[in-house]
Amino acid sequence: MAIITLTTDFGEKDHFAGAIKGAIYSELEQINIVDISHSISPFNISEAAYIIQNAYSSFPKGTIHLIGIDSELSPENKHIAVKLDDHYFICANNGIMSMICAEIAAEKIVEINIHDRVETNFPVLDIFVKVACHIARGGTLDVIGKVINSIKPIKNLIPFINDEQNQIIGSVIYIDNYGNVVTNIKRNFFESIQKNRPFEVFARSHKFEKIHNKYSDIINFDIEESKRNIEGKGLVVFNSSGYIEIAVYKSNNSTVGSASTLMGLKTMDTVTVNFLNL
Amino acid sequence: MAIITLTTDFGEKDHFAGAIKGAIYSELEQINIVDISHSISPFNISEAAYIIQNAYSSFPKGTIHLIGIDSELSPENKHIAVKLDDHYFICANNGIMSMICAEIAAEKIVEINIHDRVETNFPVLDIFVKVACHIARGGTLDVIGKVINSIKPIKNLIPFINDEQNQIIGSVIYIDNYGNVVTNIKRNFFESIQKNRPFEVFARSHKFEKIHNKYSDIINFDIEESKRNIEGKGLVVFNSSGYIEIAVYKSNNSTVGSASTLMGLKTMDTVTVNFLNL
Amino acid sequence: MAIITLTTDFGEKDHFAGAIKGAIYSELEQINIVDISHSISPFNISEAAYIIQNAYSSFPKGTIHLIGIDSELSPENKHIAVKLDDHYFICANNGIMSMICAEIAAEKIVEINIHDRVETNFPVLDIFVKVACHIARGGTLDVIGKVINSIKPIKNLIPFINDEQNQIIGSVIYIDNYGNVVTNIKRNFFESIQKNRPFEVFARSHKFEKIHNKYSDIINFDIEESKRNIEGKGLVVFNSSGYIEIAVYKSNNSTVGSASTLMGLKTMDTVTVNFLNL
Repeated sequence: MAIITLTTDFGEKDHFAGAIKGAIYSELEQINIVDISHSISPFNISEAAYIIQNAYSSFPKGTIHLIGIDSELSPENKHIAVKLDDHYFICANNGIMSMICAEIAAEKIVEINIHDRVETNFPVLDIFVKVACHIARGGTLDVIGKVINSIKPIKNLIPFINDEQNQIIGSVIYIDNYGNVVTNIKRNFFESIQKNRPFEVFARSHKFEKIHNKYSDIINFDIEESKRNIEGKGLVVFNSSGYIEIAVYKSNNSTVGSASTLMGLKTMDTVTVNFLNL
Repeated sequence: MAIITLTTDFGEKDHFAGAIKGAIYSELEQINIVDISHSISPFNISEAAYIIQNAYSSFPKGTIHLIGIDSELSPENKHIAVKLDDHYFICANNGIMSMICAEIAAEKIVEINIHDRVETNFPVLDIFVKVACHIARGGTLDVIGKVINSIKPIKNLIPFINDEQNQIIGSVIYIDNYGNVVTNIKRNFFESIQKNRPFEVFARSHKFEKIHNKYSDIINFDIEESKRNIEGKGLVVFNSSGYIEIAVYKSNNSTVGSASTLMGLKTMDTVTVNFLNL
Repeated sequence: MAIITLTTDFGEKDHFAGAIKGAIYSELEQINIVDISHSISPFNISEAAYIIQNAYSSFPKGTIHLIGIDSELSPENKHIAVKLDDHYFICANNGIMSMICAEIAAEKIVEINIHDRVETNFPVLDIFVKVACHIARGGTLDVIGKVINSIKPIKNLIPFINDEQNQIIGSVIYIDNYGNVVTNIKRNFFESIQKNRPFEVFARSHKFEKIHNKYSDIINFDIEESKRNIEGKGLVVFNSSGYIEIAVYKSNNSTVGSASTLMGLKTMDTVTVNFLNL
């Protein structure tokens, strides 16, 4: 059975996501519809790009990902369908796909051109659903669009490296549910510059000299639990998506605090890595 | 496969929605359960009415809509099942259905009478699920209730027109996830009064002389993007559900603001349309 | 078709829950995945225990419940799979299961030992999903773990009774979506101590002498609606899960207030029942 996933900024309350699901079931009786997220901040392309990038690859090949963010059709905001890594993505050509496309080349990109047949101000319902169901039935991209070769890029997702190759200047791209602060610096990129040199990670006035693989790596289990004194202590980890993340062990924004609340870090803030010469 | 949708004020956290789904799967192995919304404000009948009205018609004919808002059985709050537009609705007789029924006549309404067999203080779980599964198995409404002819009305959903037929006094019925402000004035109603006359829409101190079909209609794409100066600019549109809506282009309550936050508009506020004589 | 439920503290926004669902569909084409809650407060074991306890039993026998709270593997936090009441539970051995296990004896508990084959810092994705799919395919617990006889207990979930057997000292374990305040005192426990004696329930400065079966029990329907004067009035009920709950009729945290906001009650607060001698 085909799978269609939904990633939108519709929120949890409005009828939009429900209407989308109804429209899909009206076209296809046999379909798995899976919510990835409806809580992207309204019109936040970077957040949507981060979330779809980290969710899509867990799904089986052939999955169709419908992304409903900033999708109103205009002369500057066309609709596209992309085949990449044997997955299908349907979204506006507003930068959302550029994060994934920067890592894996798209097999095919089409600009959707079925709009002459449909007048709408709810394009996710009236256009994206039609395209998704077309693909789910085994249809090809060429039928619903014309091939294009490039998509709109998204800024600020790529960290900067200085000429001496001893500094990475990255930025915060996402704050997760635990208040953990995710940067745009990926592990393989970091290691390709590091070349085993010691380093320091700076975020505001905070300095870290180690990047852990797990949050509990900062615990010394030989010390009795009540004497460990790690509450609210910051650390840096490679998160499960492979990004450098500034975290607090067992953080909670509303109780003990988090990397975001305790260190005052927010989206777009700079995070720097300095490599020390040996 | 039958479809049961869920629209409730249970919230995203509590176990209530999960328990409902478990109970449905315990009765029916082959069923599609679809969340429309669990984030209706507690006991807010108008919100529930707006959401279910705008979601239901995307679903296939025969879909069963379970609405769990203010559903505790009492002498003044009976349970009903309604067949309308070839869809089924199960809810309390508290006004939720009157918004849909004002537009489309119900084919059949029954007052559910299976309560003598069930003692419960969680009627959505113990009554509504039973009724929904009965209908999903092909059962008729007559078996689970006795036919009634009218349902409880809901106030404030119908705009007022003055005797001269040159003013509509409407009100705000919903604020959506983008902070857009939805009125109770529908396009066909507006046009039937307008008769092509020019008009002015007033919301607090704000005046608008045009109703757009899309949010991006206010953009002049001939002007360079950085010089357009449209951030935070209000407009009026017919939204995708056909209601007059006061909006802000690419609004976001927590960043650039929205029609609701920037103009100080909230539910129940008055929105007026004055028609000018030619 | 097998059912896997999800109860986590991942939140509604992040990609984690979506990734989990994708991973399950990648292993099993025919499966029902049901969200119970992704909005448990981060790392809040008691909340997770309350929610899973009250949701699981509505599901059919054989359902697999995946609980992703505080699940990072460490010397002090092992992973377990539990068979109980013909349901399966997969979680960390951090106290989550002790609330259910206190009422119903587990048929089998295993400590999961497939970690040598998997290196991960996202164990719900890489370990729990594998175990859940193994069970969904009919696999046994012995294949993925070694049998253990006891699990980590959770504190504060059991109310205290004084020596004279005339006082129960309980505490607040959960605040629900309506701001209702749920205590850890269950009906059958209460009645076993009460032995038909009159009683007083105390919560801060509030005293109640009756426990109702429904919220609307406090309404006198013989009085005209506008003269009832019950808005904001507190009451005590046995909630639909069988716990003593302090509530407000038709409460709403953001409008009329709730038991939590109006009486200032929060999690861990003490609620006392005094029994009066006849």
